Parts: sequence; C-alpha cells; structure tokens
Amino acid sequence: MSDLRVGLAGLGTVGTGVIRMLDRRAADLAARTGRTVKVVAVAARDRTRDRGVDLSGLAWFDDPVALARDGGIDVFVELMGGDGDPAKAAVEAALDLGRPVVTANKALLARHGVDLARRAEANGASLHFEAAVAGGIPIVKTLRESLAGNQLERVSGILNGTCNYILTRMLEEKLSFNVCLGEAQRLGYAEADPTFDIDGYDTAHKLALLTSLAFGTQVDADSIYVEGIRQLTLADLEAADDLGYKVKLLGVALRTETGIEQRVHPTMVPKHWPIAQVSNVTNAVAVDGDAVSLTLVGPGAGGDATASAVVGDLTDVAKGGKDFTFGIPVGLLQKAERAPMQRHEGGYYIRLAAVNKPGTAATIAQRMADEHISLESIVQRRPDLADDAAATAHVILITYATTEEAVRRAIAAIEADGVVASLPQVIRIEKD
Amino acid sequence: MSDLRVGLAGLGTVGTGVIRMLDRRAADLAARTGRTVKVVAVAARDRTRDRGVDLSGLAWFDDPVALARDGGIDVFVELMGGDGDPAKAAVEAALDLGRPVVTANKALLARHGVDLARRAEANGASLHFEAAVAGGIPIVKTLRESLAGNQLERVSGILNGTCNYILTRMLEEKLSFNVCLGEAQRLGYAEADPTFDIDGYDTAHKLALLTSLAFGTQVDADSIYVEGIRQLTLADLEAADDLGYKVKLLGVALRTETGIEQRVHPTMVPKHWPIAQVSNVTNAVAVDGDAVSLTLVGPGAGGDATASAVVGDLTDVAKGGKDFTFGIPVGLLQKAERAPMQRHEGGYYIRLAAVNKPGTAATIAQRMADEHISLESIVQRRPDLADDAAATAHVILITYATTEEAVRRAIAAIEADGVVASLPQVIRIEKD
Repeated sequence: MSDLRVGLAGLGTVGTGVIRMLDRRAADLAARTGRTVKVVAVAARDRTRDRGVDLSGLAWFDDPVALARDGGIDVFVELMGGDGDPAKAAVEAALDLGRPVVTANKALLARHGVDLARRAEANGASLHFEAAVAGGIPIVKTLRESLAGNQLERVSGILNGTCNYILTRMLEEKLSFNVCLGEAQRLGYAEADPTFDIDGYDTAHKLALLTSLAFGTQVDADSIYVEGIRQLTLADLEAADDLGYKVKLLGVALRTETGIEQRVHPTMVPKHWPIAQVSNVTNAVAVDGDAVSLTLVGPGAGGDATASAVVGDLTDVAKGGKDFTFGIPVGLLQKAERAPMQRHEGGYYIRLAAVNKPGTAATIAQRMADEHISLESIVQRRPDLADDAAATAHVILITYATTEEAVRRAIAAIEADGVVASLPQVIRIEKD
Repeated sequence: MSDLRVGLAGLGTVGTGVIRMLDRRAADLAARTGRTVKVVAVAARDRTRDRGVDLSGLAWFDDPVALARDGGIDVFVELMGGDGDPAKAAVEAALDLGRPVVTANKALLARHGVDLARRAEANGASLHFEAAVAGGIPIVKTLRESLAGNQLERVSGILNGTCNYILTRMLEEKLSFNVCLGEAQRLGYAEADPTFDIDGYDTAHKLALLTSLAFGTQVDADSIYVEGIRQLTLADLEAADDLGYKVKLLGVALRTETGIEQRVHPTMVPKHWPIAQVSNVTNAVAVDGDAVSLTLVGPGAGGDATASAVVGDLTDVAKGGKDFTFGIPVGLLQKAERAPMQRHEGGYYIRLAAVNKPGTAATIAQRMADEHISLESIVQRRPDLADDAAATAHVILITYATTEEAVRRAIAAIEADGVVASLPQVIRIEKD
C-alpha cells in the first residue's frame, strides 16, 4: 500500500483540522483508497506558535512555494488564502510539476480559475476545490459529477454564513442590522472589517465558481452584479415576512436568452422553499436542471466542515481521480455572454419613505403605470416613530414581473417628483 | 476517443429516459469523460411495444443475461427491478466478466448487496447504484466519497414519495388517509397494491443501503424495525402540527452504544428542521457526522430524476472510477450489531381513545408513572363526533425521553385496565 504524502500550506483552523481528521480517520481512509493518506510536510508563517496539533516528524517549510515543489510530497494542499502570492505562486508551482492540488481558496480561483485550470491540464495535474464553495456542502462534486446528465438552468445559494446569521437574528430578535453585525463580530462570525462578507463579495466569488461548473463557462467574477445587505432594515424583513417571504442574500446564476445572468443581492424567497428555512450561519445551494432540482443544506464555513471537504478531495486524489477542474476541458469553457442586470426580469418589493402629503400615493402609482409596471399590492404602513420623522410613511409596493430597467426608471421619476424622503429600498423577488 | 458501449436491460420510463438523456447530452458527456457514452444494445420483454424512443440500430436481446454477457458492451445497466432473477442473474453475469454494472434496483441490493459487492471485487468490476436510493438525490456519492473524512452518527430520510405525498395532502387538505391514498393511486404515485410503499418496506430497502454506506456495515435489511403510515389519522397529524411538529415516514439509522439502530416508522420532527418542510413526493436525506451535518432535498423517483442518477454513474464508469460498492472492501464491512427496538430511546406521542368516565386520566397517568415515564404534556381533546363514538375522548400524551420498552409496557397496562376504546396510536419523536 503506497502512501499519499500530503504537503499542507496554511495552519489555521482548517489546516490543523485536516491534520487531525487525517489522523483520526486513517484506517477508514486507507480502506477506502487503498493508500495511507498522511501529512508529511507543512508550511506556515510562524514556526513557534502552538496550534494544538503535533507537528513533530513533519518537515517544515517557511516558503510554501518550496513546499509545493518539494519532491517528498505527492499532493499539495493550499489553505493560505488570498488571490495573489504566495498562494498563487505555490499552486502554480505544484501544477507545473503535474502534482495534484487541493485548495479552499475561493478568491484565488474566482480571479485566476481559468488560468490555473489550463495550467493543470497542460501538466496532467488535477485541481480540486470542494472546500472553496459552501464549505462542507459537496456542491462542486454534485455539479461536476452527479448532475452530468442535466442541462442546468439555475444555481442559487445562501453562500455566506455571516449575512445569513445577521438576517436571521434581525427578524427573530427584532434587532437592527448594526446590532446584529456587532453580535456576529463578537461571536467570530464576522471580521473586524466585515465589508467582504456583508457587501456580497464573498458570495460573488463562490457564485463565480458555481456558474462555471453549472454552465461550462469561463469563471467571470467581474460580470456579477453585487449588492450587499447593509441597507436592509428590520421593517423590510418584517414586511417580507408578512407577505409570505424570507429575505436572504442569494447568489443566483441563471441561463437566459441573452446569456448567463449572475447576481448577488438580497432576495425575497417564498417561505415554503427549502432555502427559505435555512437560518443562522448555515448555507444552502439550490440547483435546477432539466431532469433534477436539488437543494443541499449544510455548514458553509468552520474548521471541521471545511476540513471535511478538503479530506473528501484528498480521497479522490488518493484514488487517482482526475476530473477537469470545471468539469470539461478548459478549452471548451465558453466565454459567458453577460446578461446585463438591466435586463433582469422578476417581481420587486419597493419600499418608499413617502412624504406624508395629499397626492403622494397617486404620484407613485402613476410613475409605475408610466413604466407599464403592474402592481400586485400597494400597502401604506403607519409611520414608525422610532425610525422615521412623523412626516413620512412607508409605502410598500409589490410588482408583478417586470424589468430592472423599468423599475429603476420609475424610481428615478418618483424621486424627481420630490415625494420620497430618503433612498427607496428595492428587493428582488424569486418565485416558483 | 473510445466509445463506452452501454447495454441496457429494462425499457420502462427510466430506461427510455436514460437513452434520451445520453443522446441529448452526448457532446457534454464526451467533453467530461473523453469518451462517447452510447447505448448499443437493449433487453426488454416486448420487442414490439412503442416506447417513444428510436431503438433502430440497437441490438435487441430477449434475455437480459445474454445481454449482460455480450462481448459488444462495456457496461451493463440493470433497470428491470425485482430482487431475484432475471435481474440478479444478469447482474451476476456482468460482474463475473469483470464488467461494470449500474443499477437502480434497491430490492436486489437490499437482499443481495453484500454478495454482489463481493462478486464485483473478486472480478475487478464495479457496482454503481446511485439511482437505487432517493432517485435524483446524489446521496450514495455523498456518503461514499464526499463525507469520507467524517465519522457518521445518523442518517435519516424521507425515502418514499408516495407516503410523503399522502401525509402532506392529509394535513393540507384535511383529508383521511384512504382518500389521499386513492388520489395518489389516480395520479400514478402509488401502485394498485400500495403495500410495499405505505407499509414502509420500500423505505426499509433504501435505508438498508444507506446504513451500509454510512457505517461500513453489511447490508442487513432484515434487522430493520418497520412500521408504515396506514394507521395514521388526520387527528394525529393535526395534533402534531399544533405541537410544533410534522409527521413524516422516516428511515433512521443511528449509531448507538449497543449497535446500529435501523428503523422505519412515522416520526414527529420539529417544524424548523429542513426535512420537516419537504412536502409532496419530494425526498430528503439528512446526514449527521462528527464534522458535517447535511440535508439533501430532491426528487426521489420519476423517469428523469432516476435517469439522471444512472447517467451520473455512467460518467463515473466512463472516467474509470472504481469505488468499492459500499465505500470500503467487502471484507471490511462489519456485521452490524443489531440494536433492538425495545432499547430505542426518545420522546413519544401517544394518543389514546379513552373511555369517557371518571378516573380514566388518573389511571393513564399512573401507568406512565409506574414505568418512570415523564410527561411533557397531557391534553384531552374534545371528542370528534364524526370520528368517534360520543363516549370516547382523545387523550394525547407527549413524553420526555424514555425507552420503547417502557412505553410498550405502560400501554399494555392501560389496555388491561380497560380505559381505552381502541388501539393506542404511538408516534416516535425526533428532536435536536
């Protein structure tokens, strides 16, 4: 039985989790793969730090690129993060030697995925990244292998636990966004600078990879429309709840007549959808194909869950599995036609802080009609004195399917009319 | 590019669905696998029947065993069903030649899984059965590959669409079991003889396979405790709903101190669990491991969904994938210690049709106390005159965690006391 010698760069919670898991599961993994899967060498910044795992007997590298090139390893695991060097240089070094790579680095793949996939193929190496999207949920394998028989139409997901935690807490505990963000930071769910999570960029990186797997397109994170959750108020979440919806930060990739639409934004989803029930830091991915629609729910982050995905990839490597990085040869990945957000069609929730004077509702309704937007409902809510000046009232509109462009024009016209007191809130609705 | 020549036995909706899917997805599957995956030969009973697919150019076999042995195929797909011959003989014939087999046949594997896995290994063949459990949900691959790093503790699932449809309809439309069963039969969700589905045997077959994959044990369908949904009344579903639960027919396999507990029975699950929201014919599987807990939701049956699973397996075959049938070598599969149902511990819902006379409630409460069963609640419901004689009233007990044995003894004592008018209803509760 030959060993699979693992070189591991990055010794944070995921890296140490992988070391512990490989140790704990050694006998079972040997039974599954016919090989002993063991970490033999590591690279990290600080050699002296106590990480709670025994590193004695493992070769130490200060330079992850040197580890990636070392002749004593069979597979390189990159858990450093970051979309540039040294992660990029180290991954490239391993692939150039035809060595398989397992990574959890969504930022690196979102930016350089096509180049790295090309490099893997050119050198007969394989590049595995189950841990990079939705942590412990096996969505990469599901898209790349299990659903091969399907033409996929849509992939959507709750891909950021921090945002989902904040949205869950706001509604359940009737708290403001800022209070919940502070709580998430205290609990370690959010960074001191939470921009990357709450403004949707983390979700966008993961979505870019799912899009490529689902539609056979080149990874194109730059074409994703991104909107975060910072502007959402408790009043919006409550209004949505009353209307039978939950508000989730979704990443959505959709096949349309004009191309692949990729977008990240707060979304109202019907409560009976499985994804609507997914609360706190849990993630979920829904896939709609011509034969099968699936929803996968599980932990999107955390040391153990991410380590589980890394170890799953390592067992594939040990068994000699060599899938194409994005399912098909990189030369066949299509340049995705970018469906512009203005063309997006769907229902909308629009909340306006309307100036409390005669004719306001009529003005609003007329501007909608001017853009041929049909209204499913229009509700004026009693002003909440804690939130608003007494002179404004919430007007909530729910539209039937229309276009992003029409909604934006109607809102611009309403603002020009001077009947709203602050920026309108717009939340897109996904329906059956 | 070498062809992967498929021989397919069984031309029902799944078989014809596979032929159509391989045709429709030919270019994509070739890109993924580097091979052309095509059906070249088929076997079925009636050669003359019009099945809506073009069979010209395909070799026809009246005998599936002859097809399985034919030198013109590289992989044998068994979609005939049945736990005996000819399905068994045909699968064995292919495996004996070292030929990979893909099957959707849960009954065959539940009964002969260990023998067939041994035969596959002895001959260097592989045996794939993603389609046999929960149709389009990739739970076999998830357990066998993605979660290899986990020690699993529990697998549970809604594995029979017919039962889930009936339970959903009963509660939503306030209908009786028999009315909903009739509706399911009219819609083609249930057979003319629905025993196999509604009495839990279909769920048990699938559970037996999941248990083996999850716990590395020999398939042992005979040790599963099985109870169906026939005895459930609308009153039970409504009472559960009031208490914050949904009633589902679950298959549950659990690692316990005394062995692997395998059971199929109506189960009350908290409404906030993802699995509680799964309605109509949809299936779901929840997996709890030491690193990851996942829930997968999707179609459990139907031609397209099952064909999707078969085609996923065929792409693995085309790529040369050779996992062990149940994840590890058959010689390492443990004989599962059977945890007897009497030892099962959990909460219980007990509904008694109590004789409406003084002292009845006291008698019931005393018998529970005699068995050291703590009650979380005891509710006496107004008699429903449409259902019951005016002389009986429903008494509903919810117990804290206790044992199956204690509950059975308490109920026997209550029955002996003569204070109940009909058979008590018992539903086990799963909790966080």
